[in-house]
Amino acid sequence: MSLIAVARGDEPPDLVIEGARVLSVFTREWLEADVAISGGMIAGLGTYDGGERVDAGGRWLVPGFIDAHVHIESSKLTPAEFARAVVPHGTTGVVTDPHEIGNVLGLEGVQWMLEASERLPLDVFVMAPSCVPASAFESPGFALGPADMEAILRHPRALGVAEMMNFPGVIAGDPDVLARIISDHVDGHAPGVNGRALNAYIAAGVRSDHEATTFEEALEKRRRGMWVLVREASNARNLIDLLPLVKQYGPEHCAFCTDDREPDLLYRDGHIDQMCRIAVAEGIAPEDALLMATLHAARAHGLRDRGAVAPGLRADLVLLDDLTSFRPAHVYKDGRLVATDGATLPFERAAVPEFVRSTMRAAPLDADAFAIPAESERVRVIEIVPGQLITLAREEVPTVDAGRIVAAPDDDVAKIAVVERHHATGRIGRGLVRGFGLRTGAFASTVAHDAHNMVVVGVADEDMLACAARLQEIGGGIVVARGGAVRGELPLPVAGLLSDEPVEDVVERLEALQAMLRDQGVRDAAPFMTLSFLALSVIPALKITDRGLVDVERFELVPLAV
Amino acid sequence: MSLIAVARGDEPPDLVIEGARVLSVFTREWLEADVAISGGMIAGLGTYDGGERVDAGGRWLVPGFIDAHVHIESSKLTPAEFARAVVPHGTTGVVTDPHEIGNVLGLEGVQWMLEASERLPLDVFVMAPSCVPASAFESPGFALGPADMEAILRHPRALGVAEMMNFPGVIAGDPDVLARIISDHVDGHAPGVNGRALNAYIAAGVRSDHEATTFEEALEKRRRGMWVLVREASNARNLIDLLPLVKQYGPEHCAFCTDDREPDLLYRDGHIDQMCRIAVAEGIAPEDALLMATLHAARAHGLRDRGAVAPGLRADLVLLDDLTSFRPAHVYKDGRLVATDGATLPFERAAVPEFVRSTMRAAPLDADAFAIPAESERVRVIEIVPGQLITLAREEVPTVDAGRIVAAPDDDVAKIAVVERHHATGRIGRGLVRGFGLRTGAFASTVAHDAHNMVVVGVADEDMLACAARLQEIGGGIVVARGGAVRGELPLPVAGLLSDEPVEDVVERLEALQAMLRDQGVRDAAPFMTLSFLALSVIPALKITDRGLVDVERFELVPLAV
Repeated sequence: MSLIAVARGDEPPDLVIEGARVLSVFTREWLEADVAISGGMIAGLGTYDGGERVDAGGRWLVPGFIDAHVHIESSKLTPAEFARAVVPHGTTGVVTDPHEIGNVLGLEGVQWMLEASERLPLDVFVMAPSCVPASAFESPGFALGPADMEAILRHPRALGVAEMMNFPGVIAGDPDVLARIISDHVDGHAPGVNGRALNAYIAAGVRSDHEATTFEEALEKRRRGMWVLVREASNARNLIDLLPLVKQYGPEHCAFCTDDREPDLLYRDGHIDQMCRIAVAEGIAPEDALLMATLHAARAHGLRDRGAVAPGLRADLVLLDDLTSFRPAHVYKDGRLVATDGATLPFERAAVPEFVRSTMRAAPLDADAFAIPAESERVRVIEIVPGQLITLAREEVPTVDAGRIVAAPDDDVAKIAVVERHHATGRIGRGLVRGFGLRTGAFASTVAHDAHNMVVVGVADEDMLACAARLQEIGGGIVVARGGAVRGELPLPVAGLLSDEPVEDVVERLEALQAMLRDQGVRDAAPFMTLSFLALSVIPALKITDRGLVDVERFELVPLAV
Repeated sequence: MSLIAVARGDEPPDLVIEGARVLSVFTREWLEADVAISGGMIAGLGTYDGGERVDAGGRWLVPGFIDAHVHIESSKLTPAEFARAVVPHGTTGVVTDPHEIGNVLGLEGVQWMLEASERLPLDVFVMAPSCVPASAFESPGFALGPADMEAILRHPRALGVAEMMNFPGVIAGDPDVLARIISDHVDGHAPGVNGRALNAYIAAGVRSDHEATTFEEALEKRRRGMWVLVREASNARNLIDLLPLVKQYGPEHCAFCTDDREPDLLYRDGHIDQMCRIAVAEGIAPEDALLMATLHAARAHGLRDRGAVAPGLRADLVLLDDLTSFRPAHVYKDGRLVATDGATLPFERAAVPEFVRSTMRAAPLDADAFAIPAESERVRVIEIVPGQLITLAREEVPTVDAGRIVAAPDDDVAKIAVVERHHATGRIGRGLVRGFGLRTGAFASTVAHDAHNMVVVGVADEDMLACAARLQEIGGGIVVARGGAVRGELPLPVAGLLSDEPVEDVVERLEALQAMLRDQGVRDAAPFMTLSFLALSVIPALKITDRGLVDVERFELVPLAV
């Protein structure tokens, strides 16, 4: 074996990175050593002659970053563009749950994501989506059953079962839900679950969670043996709240993840590197931050070939300029330079096949499609919590006009609707949402977790209708309307979820839409991400699907009228 | 699933341990919580009603201890008696390498060990022996090839490949040696290996080591990603020397193991509990010691169902009186009480089959069998290092009498011989050993790592002959002779390695023999363990097999004459 011969110094390495301070994740030390690479693997640390030489000039050499839980689809980028966005930030591996595309296109969609993530400068591991649909209250394009999950698990990059979002079903011991625990490696999703319910969830075999939003919640989960996947998503910014856990109990059993990030956040601020930057700014030792960004993510997923700069491991390496900005000067994947100074080196990519492009099948909407008859004194209202996935469930007296419940922009109440868009059922769920700040117009998206029907928020029905019509025309995406006309759009023709454009263009369009919404009064920094989670029926408290309002805590459909 | 229903409080547990301080290995905290058990598993921590109640009275509840690397055969006990010896000390799991019986009886011997370790109050996991024989310089009863290893790996309790003791072969990239790396979980054995040679060894896929004897050696191995299995064997007492690694860098990537323990040490001082006791006495935090005794051993071997007191894990639990003596008041295995106040509760055991009892097949020895002709001015002498497995290689002027090299008891030099005993080849290796202190008589053993031929040390040929003859008669064991007659013996009829008697009787006989040897001048506290390793050709520096002296550093046979 050539690697062994290189390691012992009898054959020349392919590449030697010399003059770096090399992190040992096993001792939290910085070692002064050459790192010799052969055949894409790390041969050894020490003194090595020969091979191509890279002078690190005293920079900090660390393992490639690993995102312990991400939905690539949330980036609105194809896997190739996602790679181009995150690799310059030092990410060389992600563990993804492709349940977004699974909801739209079923097993074939997941298989396309796997094909589309071949031969990237990034290893994309997959967890088999366990909850497609997320619950019985959602109407996806396709469901994924245990047999589909088994098919996904046979893929060489499959690691286990993705987040068991139907936590009420797990805790209740629902046999149909438990039948999806078909691996001994099962990710969790248990927002706010504690006490004996948490014991039950863990006893079912779930071993991680990325939904903790408070120190106390994360501590209880960690005490009971869960991997705490500390999340910093576009609108679930839990990092700073959870860092006290690391300060008080050390970084063990914690790893970083991003779950759902808008492309602008990835492009402007970064990925796992950004989490390291924030953590260190908040007083975490750089070595501890790096452990959560590398080894611990690998350990959480049983990835034995990465997560450290050590002999016999994959040469996924990041050369950092410093330990405050965590800016990567160079990124190596399997021993090859794949990004330098913020830019990914070119790589080949496959074309997007036609079958993932034509997924808009909503029934035609009539002029009254979004009308809500006034039938009770008080109604349920979803209140958004800026920067969080959870919502509050309000009960309020609605504004009524001509026998219909209408938006009350002065009181920050808009109308919200979810239009089924996969099977032309014509099913529409209608309700009210408080907190966006929208004063005029409407906005809509076919990114609407998890079933990815069309979700529309507006203060005027004509704008809501304009949004819906335009989304049908462009094959899905995000649109903003005002004065009865569409004012801006980001087409997402790939499954209604992803653009086929470069990340720069997607970010530019998205930011233009966000600016437009700010002009229309919206205060949320990531309004489309917030919007997209209002349809997710497995995160408390009150959500909406095409079937109506969902009380997530009671886990049942509830009427608008109280 | 009943476990989930019990966890959430809807069905009664089988057993509740209440009033304990419960270790969370994930936060190093002591939690005040009931621990509910159902069907042998931990359902949850919290408040639980119903079930059988055990009042822990403020005692300390910790996970069952796991020995990360042990050769059960070294205890000279059958697996059942080994269990009876260690379970009261809190051990509920061991990872064993059955290479001793593998050397004597091949695959069938290993399979018997596996059968004999069924249904014990202890889980015995097995690593497939990788080096039977340990090297080409040894002559076992049987060799184990990769096909035999594959057969062992198919066993449900098999975890991976046992210690790759032929580290020179691994580092050299010998294809026959590398062909034994047939798992991604491979234990190591790399005494004194460092620098690029260590890189090469690790790059081959080896991920642990239990041979480090110094802080520096253990630190280098840990820096490069090896699990440091801190060993406290009968005559490889590395614990105190390695604890500074834990003090300086924390307990991560370290686990406890005992490798080879005489039954007297197990019976008198204990097992993993004794390592905790020593570690804490040396200033290690009890929680850190317990991590190395539990979770880390489980993690080192990928055992996901144990190592913590947490929902969904096996209810292997130890209730400790305190955190200084680490004395277990009660030990639970799979939720059943299996030991209390130092005694194992009775359990059923299988009889030892006849085929493992008849393994002595040495050729008859004539009166000159141990004679060494004087043929050179200077000869090689093995010098033992008390409490260590390594030896020193000396070159000395021998004492000669009537043309023969003889022992020099005044100068602490005895004769040593290894007699092939499996295939009656008549092959005998002869040499000299310094350091036992033996002034008269001889002692011998069929426990002689790893080939387990007959190893004899003496100052008088007649006593050496008496020892060898008696071992042949009793089917193997340990004997002490003086004045031409055998004075004491411990028969080990099971493969020449194990007694079929209770641990108490084995200890009594062994201690009597040790006392006898002290009377004959021997100072070593575990002389038979030391003796048994003088034939192991993979631990430096100078060893002896039936083929002659082995220079382990040069990894070749060397003549007695310099």
